Amino acid sequence: MPDLNHDLVRRIVREALEEDGAFQDVTTLTTVPQEQMGRAIFLAKEAGVLAGLPVAAAAFAAVDPAIVVSNAVEELPPGGRRTVITLRPGLHDGAVLEPGTVIAHVEGPLAPILSAERVALNFLQRLSGVATATKRLKDAVEGLPVRIVDTRKTTPGLRALERYAVQVGGGQNHRFNLADGVLIKDNHVAAGRARGLTLGQVIASARAGAPHTLRIEVEVTSFEEAREAVDAGADVILLDNMTPAEMQRCVAMIAGRALTEASGGITAENARAIAESGVDIISSGALTHSAPALDISLEIEAS
Amino acid sequence: MPDLNHDLVRRIVREALEEDGAFQDVTTLTTVPQEQMGRAIFLAKEAGVLAGLPVAAAAFAAVDPAIVVSNAVEELPPGGRRTVITLRPGLHDGAVLEPGTVIAHVEGPLAPILSAERVALNFLQRLSGVATATKRLKDAVEGLPVRIVDTRKTTPGLRALERYAVQVGGGQNHRFNLADGVLIKDNHVAAGRARGLTLGQVIASARAGAPHTLRIEVEVTSFEEAREAVDAGADVILLDNMTPAEMQRCVAMIAGRALTEASGGITAENARAIAESGVDIISSGALTHSAPALDISLEIEAS
Amino acid sequence: MPDLNHDLVRRIVREALEEDGAFQDVTTLTTVPQEQMGRAIFLAKEAGVLAGLPVAAAAFAAVDPAIVVSNAVEELPPGGRRTVITLRPGLHDGAVLEPGTVIAHVEGPLAPILSAERVALNFLQRLSGVATATKRLKDAVEGLPVRIVDTRKTTPGLRALERYAVQVGGGQNHRFNLADGVLIKDNHVAAGRARGLTLGQVIASARAGAPHTLRIEVEVTSFEEAREAVDAGADVILLDNMTPAEMQRCVAMIAGRALTEASGGITAENARAIAESGVDIISSGALTHSAPALDISLEIEAS
Amino acid sequence: MPDLNHDLVRRIVREALEEDGAFQDVTTLTTVPQEQMGRAIFLAKEAGVLAGLPVAAAAFAAVDPAIVVSNAVEELPPGGRRTVITLRPGLHDGAVLEPGTVIAHVEGPLAPILSAERVALNFLQRLSGVATATKRLKDAVEGLPVRIVDTRKTTPGLRALERYAVQVGGGQNHRFNLADGVLIKDNHVAAGRARGLTLGQVIASARAGAPHTLRIEVEVTSFEEAREAVDAGADVILLDNMTPAEMQRCVAMIAGRALTEASGGITAENARAIAESGVDIISSGALTHSAPALDISLEIEAS
Amino acid sequence: MPDLNHDLVRRIVREALEEDGAFQDVTTLTTVPQEQMGRAIFLAKEAGVLAGLPVAAAAFAAVDPAIVVSNAVEELPPGGRRTVITLRPGLHDGAVLEPGTVIAHVEGPLAPILSAERVALNFLQRLSGVATATKRLKDAVEGLPVRIVDTRKTTPGLRALERYAVQVGGGQNHRFNLADGVLIKDNHVAAGRARGLTLGQVIASARAGAPHTLRIEVEVTSFEEAREAVDAGADVILLDNMTPAEMQRCVAMIAGRALTEASGGITAENARAIAESGVDIISSGALTHSAPALDISLEIEAS
Amino acid sequence: MPDLNHDLVRRIVREALEEDGAFQDVTTLTTVPQEQMGRAIFLAKEAGVLAGLPVAAAAFAAVDPAIVVSNAVEELPPGGRRTVITLRPGLHDGAVLEPGTVIAHVEGPLAPILSAERVALNFLQRLSGVATATKRLKDAVEGLPVRIVDTRKTTPGLRALERYAVQVGGGQNHRFNLADGVLIKDNHVAAGRARGLTLGQVIASARAGAPHTLRIEVEVTSFEEAREAVDAGADVILLDNMTPAEMQRCVAMIAGRALTEASGGITAENARAIAESGVDIISSGALTHSAPALDISLEIEAS
Repeated sequence: MPDLNHDLVRRIVREALEEDGAFQDVTTLTTVPQEQMGRAIFLAKEAGVLAGLPVAAAAFAAVDPAIVVSNAVEELPPGGRRTVITLRPGLHDGAVLEPGTVIAHVEGPLAPILSAERVALNFLQRLSGVATATKRLKDAVEGLPVRIVDTRKTTPGLRALERYAVQVGGGQNHRFNLADGVLIKDNHVAAGRARGLTLGQVIASARAGAPHTLRIEVEVTSFEEAREAVDAGADVILLDNMTPAEMQRCVAMIAGRALTEASGGITAENARAIAESGVDIISSGALTHSAPALDISLEIEAS
Repeated sequence: MPDLNHDLVRRIVREALEEDGAFQDVTTLTTVPQEQMGRAIFLAKEAGVLAGLPVAAAAFAAVDPAIVVSNAVEELPPGGRRTVITLRPGLHDGAVLEPGTVIAHVEGPLAPILSAERVALNFLQRLSGVATATKRLKDAVEGLPVRIVDTRKTTPGLRALERYAVQVGGGQNHRFNLADGVLIKDNHVAAGRARGLTLGQVIASARAGAPHTLRIEVEVTSFEEAREAVDAGADVILLDNMTPAEMQRCVAMIAGRALTEASGGITAENARAIAESGVDIISSGALTHSAPALDISLEIEAS
Repeated sequence: MPDLNHDLVRRIVREALEEDGAFQDVTTLTTVPQEQMGRAIFLAKEAGVLAGLPVAAAAFAAVDPAIVVSNAVEELPPGGRRTVITLRPGLHDGAVLEPGTVIAHVEGPLAPILSAERVALNFLQRLSGVATATKRLKDAVEGLPVRIVDTRKTTPGLRALERYAVQVGGGQNHRFNLADGVLIKDNHVAAGRARGLTLGQVIASARAGAPHTLRIEVEVTSFEEAREAVDAGADVILLDNMTPAEMQRCVAMIAGRALTEASGGITAENARAIAESGVDIISSGALTHSAPALDISLEIEAS
Repeated sequence: MPDLNHDLVRRIVREALEEDGAFQDVTTLTTVPQEQMGRAIFLAKEAGVLAGLPVAAAAFAAVDPAIVVSNAVEELPPGGRRTVITLRPGLHDGAVLEPGTVIAHVEGPLAPILSAERVALNFLQRLSGVATATKRLKDAVEGLPVRIVDTRKTTPGLRALERYAVQVGGGQNHRFNLADGVLIKDNHVAAGRARGLTLGQVIASARAGAPHTLRIEVEVTSFEEAREAVDAGADVILLDNMTPAEMQRCVAMIAGRALTEASGGITAENARAIAESGVDIISSGALTHSAPALDISLEIEAS
Repeated sequence: MPDLNHDLVRRIVREALEEDGAFQDVTTLTTVPQEQMGRAIFLAKEAGVLAGLPVAAAAFAAVDPAIVVSNAVEELPPGGRRTVITLRPGLHDGAVLEPGTVIAHVEGPLAPILSAERVALNFLQRLSGVATATKRLKDAVEGLPVRIVDTRKTTPGLRALERYAVQVGGGQNHRFNLADGVLIKDNHVAAGRARGLTLGQVIASARAGAPHTLRIEVEVTSFEEAREAVDAGADVILLDNMTPAEMQRCVAMIAGRALTEASGGITAENARAIAESGVDIISSGALTHSAPALDISLEIEAS
Repeated sequence: MPDLNHDLVRRIVREALEEDGAFQDVTTLTTVPQEQMGRAIFLAKEAGVLAGLPVAAAAFAAVDPAIVVSNAVEELPPGGRRTVITLRPGLHDGAVLEPGTVIAHVEGPLAPILSAERVALNFLQRLSGVATATKRLKDAVEGLPVRIVDTRKTTPGLRALERYAVQVGGGQNHRFNLADGVLIKDNHVAAGRARGLTLGQVIASARAGAPHTLRIEVEVTSFEEAREAVDAGADVILLDNMTPAEMQRCVAMIAGRALTEASGGITAENARAIAESGVDIISSGALTHSAPALDISLEIEAS
C-alpha cells in the first residue's frame, strides 16, 4: 500500500498556499463574494496514472473546510458539458486515466476554490506525472522479476510526495536519504584509495561502522570492480552505466551472492533489455527529476 | 539586477539537506575520515546559462563553513584531467556555459563535500535549466520590444528561486502570487456572470476593492472579450491561447489603452511570431514547470 | 467584504497567549477549579466601531474549545445587572457601539475564560480603536469620491489584523508591504539624482524592472515635482504634506492622467478640506499607529 | 541594568522585516543599485527618552551585515544640513533627547538601508515613546519611595521589548505574565464566593497551590476588602481605582504587613498625589498601551 | 489539580513521533495492512503511581485519530489472558498501580498502534516513574506540615511534563525556571563578595530589581549564613546539605521570619527526619533526574 | 569517529535554555552586573567517561559568545583550590575521568555563565552517564567479537545526543528509528498470524516491500522461532530474553546464515556470558533509559 504521511501533506500544502498568497487572493476577494457556491471537476486531458488526489484535496481543505472533494463523480457525456449526471464510484490514486476521464469533483464556496486551484493542480499534475512515468517503466519490464526504484534526484522539499507517487505507479523506493542506507560511490572509494585503502577495506570500514540493520551497497563501473566488491562482501552491487551485456556478465559472475542494481540512463525503451540481463533492481532518477507533469485541469462552474 | 534573498536561500538549502539526511550520511561517516581534505570542480556537461551558484555554495556552507566555493577556477586542458592549472576569473550566474566549461571549484574537508554534493547539484541543475529556457525564449524575440515573464506554475516551495533564475536568464517576473497582483481569469468572470454581472462590472468590482497600487489585468479568449475588457478600463489584457493573427487584431484594437500579454503554449519556436503581433509581454509557465535540468556534474578529487 | 485570514489569527492569538503565560496561569489554576462554569459579556464602555470579535473569540477557543462566544446577546436593563434576559440578534464587526452596548457573550468553563480574558481584550480594544478612527475619517469625507487608506506604519506583527480593522471601519488598504507595490519616495529619487538620473529616469527604471501588474506611484512635495512625475508617466502621485490649495492645483494640472493620494498630517478635522481638493485617495498612518484603544470590558459572572 | 534578550530582538525584527516585505522591496530593487553607498542619521523631532537603538540597529543588520550603526555621531549645525562635522560620543538608550538631537548614524549600502528604514523607525519610535511616558511618571514622583511599574496591557508580541523600554525610562516591571506571578483579581474572588469561599479562603488556596517563590497579591476595591486581604495574609495589596485619601487610609491600616500597589487611571498629573498616599508601587497600563510614539526620523543621504 | 498544557503535550508528542520515524515505520507498513484492526491494554508490571495517560493517548491520537484510548478497562483474570471480560471504571493519573493492574485499553487500526507504541510507553513509564518517586517521598513525611517540591534538574525539553508528574504524585512545584523565581545561590553571593558586597547587600539588590511579585529566596550552607540571610530580609531560606540537627537549629533561629527549604541528598529514607526538623519545604532533584521508569507494557492483540 | 550534528546541538541547547528561562534569569540580572568577569572549571566528582563537552560549550556560547570554553585546563593541587596553575592538554569526549579530574575551563562574563550553568551541566552529566554505562558494558566483553548497541528506548527529543554518547563510550548504534531499519517484532508476527500468515510469509512481505538497502531483522523468543526465521531468510535474528545456553544453541543452528542479536535484561554482570554464546550483537535499552547521570560540577570563581 502506498503510504502518505498526512501531517506532512498538510504542512507542505499549507506552505505552498502561503507561498502563493492564497489567503490574500486580492482578485478573488474583490470579485467573488464569500457566500457564492460553486462546483468543479478535475478532468484528465491526457492518458496517465492518477497520483496526488489526497494532496489536492488537502489544498482545498486548508483554505476552507467547507469544501468537499469527492471521488463519487458524475459522468460527462462525450465532449459535452454536464447535462446527464450519473454518479459512479470514483477514482483513487493509481487509477488509469484517459483523456476526458473525470477524476473527482469539488463543491463548496467558490472563492476559496478559486484561491486554492493552482496549488491543488500543481501537486496533482506533478505527482501524476511521476506515477505515469513509473508505470511506463514498470509496464516495460512486465513479467520480469525486477524491481523499479527511484533515487535521491527528487525535488527539494517534495521527496516524500514523489516517492509516494513512485509507489502509486507500481515502483518501489530506494533508500530515503543518506541517513538510512549505505551506498559506497566512486568518490568514497577514491577517498579511500587516496589513503591507501583497497575497495575491500572501504567496504569493511562501512560494514564495521554502519548499523547492522543496513545492507552495504557498492557502486561499480566495470566487471573487475563488481568482482572486487562482491568478493569483499558487498550486499548489493550497483552497476553504473553498463550495457545490458556487461550487466549480464556481472550478474553471472555474482551468481546470487549479492543483489544487483542497474542505474544510469534508464528509459522505457531500454528498460526491458536491461531487465533481461538478470539484474534485481532498476533505478531511475528521471522518474522524479524529469517526469513531465500530467495535463489535468479544474473545470469550475459558479452557481 | 537579479535579486536573491540570502536568508531564504539558507533556509531552503538547510531543509533540503535535512530532507536528504546530509547531517547523518552513514556512508561517508563510516568511510571518509573527518580530516581528509579534497577538492572538486563544477563542470558543465551541456550548453546553457548558469544560475544558482550562490545556492549551491550555500549547501556546502551549511554542512561545513570550512568548505570554500570559489569562482576563481582553473583551466582544464581539453577533455583531460587537471594537469595544467591556470587560474582565471570565474563565472557568475548569467554566464553562458559550453560543454566542458569549468564553473567553480570547491575545496575543503572531503566528507561534508560528499554529503552536500547531491543537494548542491539538484539546485544548480534545476535553476540553470530555468535560466537556460528563459534565455532561449529571450533570444527568440531579440530586438523586439517584448518582455518575457514567468507565471505561478512554479515548483511548490521554490518559487523565489525559480523567479530569480528567470531574471538570470534575461526574463522578468509576473506577479509573485495571488496577493500582489490582480488577474481576473475566466472563472472570476463566470462567477460574476452567474450573479448577473457584466465583465465591466466585475472589473469595476476589482478596481473598487483592490489597493490602488495594483493594475487590473483581465484574461480574455476572444477579440470581443478583449474589447469589452479594455472598454471597461482594464490596465492589462491577457490574450489567452490566441493565434498571432488574433493577437495582432487585438493589439490594433486596444491601441495602447492597455498593455497586452500573450499566454498559452509559448515555445522558443513560436515566440517570435507572437512577439511580432505587437504584444507587450509574453508569459510562459513552461519556463519553470518544464525546463529540463541542465547537466552539470561535480568532479571530486580526494587528497 | 473585510477579509480575515483565520489561520493567521489563530497563530497570532496563540503566540499572544503563550507570551502571556495563559496556559500556566498560576492564580487561576490555584483558585478556580476546572469544573466551575461561568459566563461573561463584552461591554462597550465608550462609542465606536466594533472590530476584532473573531480574534477575541479565537483567544477563548485556543485555551478551551468548550468556551462558546456567541453573538446572540442578552439585553441588559439600563445601567443594571442582568435580571431581564432578552436574547437579540448579535453584533458583528463593523457595528456601531454606544456606551453600554452589549457586544457578545462568552460562556463555558470559568478558569480558561479568566486566563484568556486579557489577550482577548487587548486585541478587541486595539482593533476596535483602529476601526473607530477609520470610521471617523470616513465620516468626515462623506459624500466625496475619495478613498481612505492605511499606510505601513502598523504595529510590527499585527499588520494584517490592523488592515482588516481599517476595512471594517470603512477604509481601504494601501499596498500590504514593500513587495507588492511600487512607491518611489524622496530617498529613491535622491539616490537616483546622486547617480545623475532625472526623476523621469528613476520612474522609467522602476517601470522597466517592476512586474507589469504594479502601478508606479511617486511621492512628490511640490507642484513642480508633481508635474515632472506625471509627465514621466507615473500612475499615482502621492502629494506629501501639501496644503489643500496646493493639492487642488496639482489635481488640476494632473487632470486625470494619474491618481492622486494625499498624505501627511491627516486628521478628522482637516480631512474634508483635503478631500475637497479633488484627490482620489487620502492615506493616514495615524489610523494604525495612533488610534487609541476603544474601552471595552469583559464582565464575568461565576456560577 | 535594563536587560534585552538579543536573540529575541533578532527574531522579532526579522519577522517584522518579513511582514514588511523588506527582502523583496520592489521599489528599491528597481531604482537603487546594490553598490550605491549612503549614510543617514537618526534625528529626534521632539523631546523624550531614547529607547530601542539596539532594536533599530538589529533591523539594519538583518537586511545587510555591511550596514554600520554607530553611536559616534556628528554634530549638526542648528537647523541646518551637515556641513560642520564634529564627531562626539554617542547616545545610548536612556539618553534624554531634545528636538534636533542627532541620535546615531547609519552608513553602508543604500538599498538595504532604504528597505529596513520603516521597520527600524517603527520600533525606535514606539519604544522611545514608552520610555518617555515612563520617565514622565517617574519624574512626577521624584524623591518619593515609590516604584513605577508596567502591567500586562502590552502590545501582543512585543511585551519583552516594551518592558525593556519601561526599564530604560526608569520604571520597573510587574510580573511578566500569568505564569510568574500571583494576582488574585475580583473575578477570582467572585469565582470563589460563588463556591461559598471567603476571600481568606481564596487566598489560602492560592498560597497552598502556588510555588513558594511567589508572593500572593490581591486586588481590592475598598478599605474593607483591603483589611480582609491583609488579615488573610496577602503579601501585596493592589488598591484598584481608589482616591489618594482612600489609599492613605489603607496604607495606614496595613501598616507594613503587606506591600501596596496603586492601579487604575494613573497619569503624570495625579501620580504624585497617589505616591504621597504612601503606596509602595504605582502600576500603569498606559505606559505601554497608550504611550504616543516619539517622533524620530531617518535622514538619508545618497552618495 | 495537576495541570497539563494539552497543546504543549501535542507538540512534544509529535516531535517524539517524528524523531522515532513513526510516520514512516517501514516494518509495519510492509507487514500490517492499514485495514487490520487491533486492541491492546496498558498493563502495570510493578507497583507505583500512574502518570502520563493523557500523554500516551496523545501519541496514539497523533498517528491516527481513529484510535480510541479508553479508561473503561476490562478485568483480566489473575495471571491469564483475557477470557473473562468485565468492564469497570478506569484509572486516571494519580491512581495507585499494582503489578498486573490493567490501566487502560487502546483500540483501532493496528498499524498505527504499533507505530506509536514505543513513544507512548516511553512517556508513560518515565512520568509514572516520577510520580511514583514523588509519592514515596510524600508518604515518608505523611502527617507532617511539609511541602515536597521539585527542582530545575529536569530532562531538557520535558520540564512541564515532569512537573505535572510531580503534582500527580502529590508534590508541588518549585519555580518553573530562572525567569519566574529568585534564588540567590552561593555563586551569586560570591560574585557580590568579589565586588565588596555583603550578603545583605546582595539580597537588597535582588529585592530592588526583581518584580515585587517574587519572594527572595537565598541558599545558605551554615547557621551563620542563614542568620545573615534572614536578618537581611530574605523571604525563603534554602538550607543546603545540612543535617537535620543543623536544620532544626536554623528553623528555631528563623522563628517564622522566613520559610525554610531543605535541599541536597534527600531520599525516602532520610526525608522524615529532615521534615521533623521543622522545615517548610523539601526539594529533591532526584524526583526528576533519577526516578527509574515504572515498568509498564502494552499488550497487543491483532484481530 | 563519533558524529555530532552541531546544528542540532545548537537547536536543542537553545530550547533547553529557553525552557529554563536562561535569557531572563531574574536573580542573576539583579545581583550580578554585566561587566563582572569570572571563570569556572568543570570538575568530575566520580569516575566515568566524559561525553557532551561540545554540548555544554554550546550552552555557554548560546547565552554569550564572549564566553570561552577551553580544553586547555589547569592542574589543581590534590583536593585544594587553584593556587598552582599548570596548563596541560585538555580532555575530549571519550576521556576517562577520575574523581577530581579537571575537565575543562570556562571563562568570560560571569552573569551569562551563571545563567547557563544548569543547562550545561544537565547535558554533560546525562551524556557522560550514558557513555560511562556503555564503556562498562564494552569492558565486560573485552576481547570478544561482539558489538554493543543501543535501542530506541531513548529520552524523547534527545535520541541523537544519546546515540552519540553511546559511540563515545565505545558502543555502536542500532537503527536510528522506525524509518531506517526493519525489525519484525512479535506483534508484527501476531498481526500476520491473525490474517493466516506464517512467519515466513511475514518476512517475505517485509522483504518485498522494504527498500533493498535494508536488512530484515526478526525478533524471536525460542529456538523454534529462530529456526523458522532463519529458514525464511531473515538477515538478523534478535534473540529476546534468552539464556546464554539457549542463545548458544540458536547461534549453532543459525551457523552464520544470519547475524544474531541478544536483547533483554543485559547488565554489565551478565554481558560476558551472553557474548560468549557467540552472538554478534548485544543491545541494551538501559544504556540510555537508565544510565545514572555522572556527577560533574561547575566550580565558579568570580573576579
